[in-house]
Amino acid sequence: MGRVETRLTALGLKLPPPLQLPSNNRTSGARVGNVLYLSGHGADLLDGEEVKKRGKIGGDLTEQEGYATARALALKMLATVKHHVGELDRVKRVVKILGMINAVPGFEHHNRVLNGASDLLFEVFGPDAGCHARSSVGVSGLVANQCVEIEGIFEIDDALCQDNG
Amino acid sequence: MGRVETRLTALGLKLPPPLQLPSNNRTSGARVGNVLYLSGHGADLLDGEEVKKRGKIGGDLTEQEGYATARALALKMLATVKHHVGELDRVKRVVKILGMINAVPGFEHHNRVLNGASDLLFEVFGPDAGCHARSSVGVSGLVANQCVEIEGIFEIDDALCQDNG
Amino acid sequence: MGRVETRLTALGLKLPPPLQLPSNNRTSGARVGNVLYLSGHGADLLDGEEVKKRGKIGGDLTEQEGYATARALALKMLATVKHHVGELDRVKRVVKILGMINAVPGFEHHNRVLNGASDLLFEVFGPDAGCHARSSVGVSGLVANQCVEIEGIFEIDDALCQDNG
Repeated sequence: MGRVETRLTALGLKLPPPLQLPSNNRTSGARVGNVLYLSGHGADLLDGEEVKKRGKIGGDLTEQEGYATARALALKMLATVKHHVGELDRVKRVVKILGMINAVPGFEHHNRVLNGASDLLFEVFGPDAGCHARSSVGVSGLVANQCVEIEGIFEIDDALCQDNG
Repeated sequence: MGRVETRLTALGLKLPPPLQLPSNNRTSGARVGNVLYLSGHGADLLDGEEVKKRGKIGGDLTEQEGYATARALALKMLATVKHHVGELDRVKRVVKILGMINAVPGFEHHNRVLNGASDLLFEVFGPDAGCHARSSVGVSGLVANQCVEIEGIFEIDDALCQDNG
Repeated sequence: MGRVETRLTALGLKLPPPLQLPSNNRTSGARVGNVLYLSGHGADLLDGEEVKKRGKIGGDLTEQEGYATARALALKMLATVKHHVGELDRVKRVVKILGMINAVPGFEHHNRVLNGASDLLFEVFGPDAGCHARSSVGVSGLVANQCVEIEGIFEIDDALCQDNG
């Protein structure tokens, strides 16, 4: 088991299956050289029932429930990264994430929701590789009324790359 | 005529003019090395009257009308790509698109609207070069109340590049 | 003083402090090779009281006030770029910006608001390096009800790069 997955285990985390999309016209991630672009990972495609998947944050769901969902999405993003590059140790840096938060009008804490993802990435990869740029935005709707969707850009170590993208 | 444009013809498709922006302060596409970033292509700047340009999907417009508009936008994006790199055969891969869907509150099928673009890209470029990452998001408004706007990232074959970006 | 900062002075502009984020789990900008990705720069983190920071454009704030805020945000983005690459002369090109405009339902001029940023980047860097791809989108909410948030992608001259990203 690699360094990053050992760290996941130490944090009590287990990789879920990578993102499975309902159509073949697109993919969960596409790589250009040493940069991997992940598709939006939406809460509705999370596994299990541990976290809330649908509803508006600040209305149907609390900010804390949104945080937990964002954290679960970040873990699923790592599973998708592994699927595309073979091994999480090949991640040189988390470059950027965009958090789309399905919130009620007047909600003002999209950043705190997205911290669920940022905190996890920081915990797993540490202050250098884990520290990323990001934007968080309130959206008026998401597929299936899911509460959060996150897309991401990851830098991959070229020397260690398999071509599985 | 190149391979990709031959394919377009076989599909009964014809490239429209590339995106023309109303101001010189920005461009329809900017290239960094082998990556071309396209500006958001909005329905209001589509040519002709074949598809719906304005209104909220799920209210003023149906999901099917949104699909048709997204398909027309993807075709216009290809015209813009050609403008910037000279020849569509230089597209090595469609990397990622972001679909901004101007929908009524409660609309849950942004993905089906954006499939208009993804299906076209897949049909034109095939399962390797055409299979892309993407995110679809419901937005509360777009310029001119246009119904759909799509931005995209394309990988260009460096060996075949003209510097027209 | 470098060429770009001399130009800023000639335009009567002064760089503010770079973006400071409230948490260490993320950074204001992350670089991959010669590409620098900036985090969303939100109006609420602007300095001083010269421009409007909070409220919905088209309701609480006018389009012109939004333009001024977007212009101030672009200037702050340049301060952040300088922080990450050491010197603004290292900017080879402004590649792309995404403007998230917190507007009232029915607002249709998100592009005119974002012109505040595009015009400044064009004035500072000129028609080659300053001409960028962009998307502007109406969002249903932003952190702290700030009126505008902008993220950006900048091409950096590798030969001139310090590793400060």
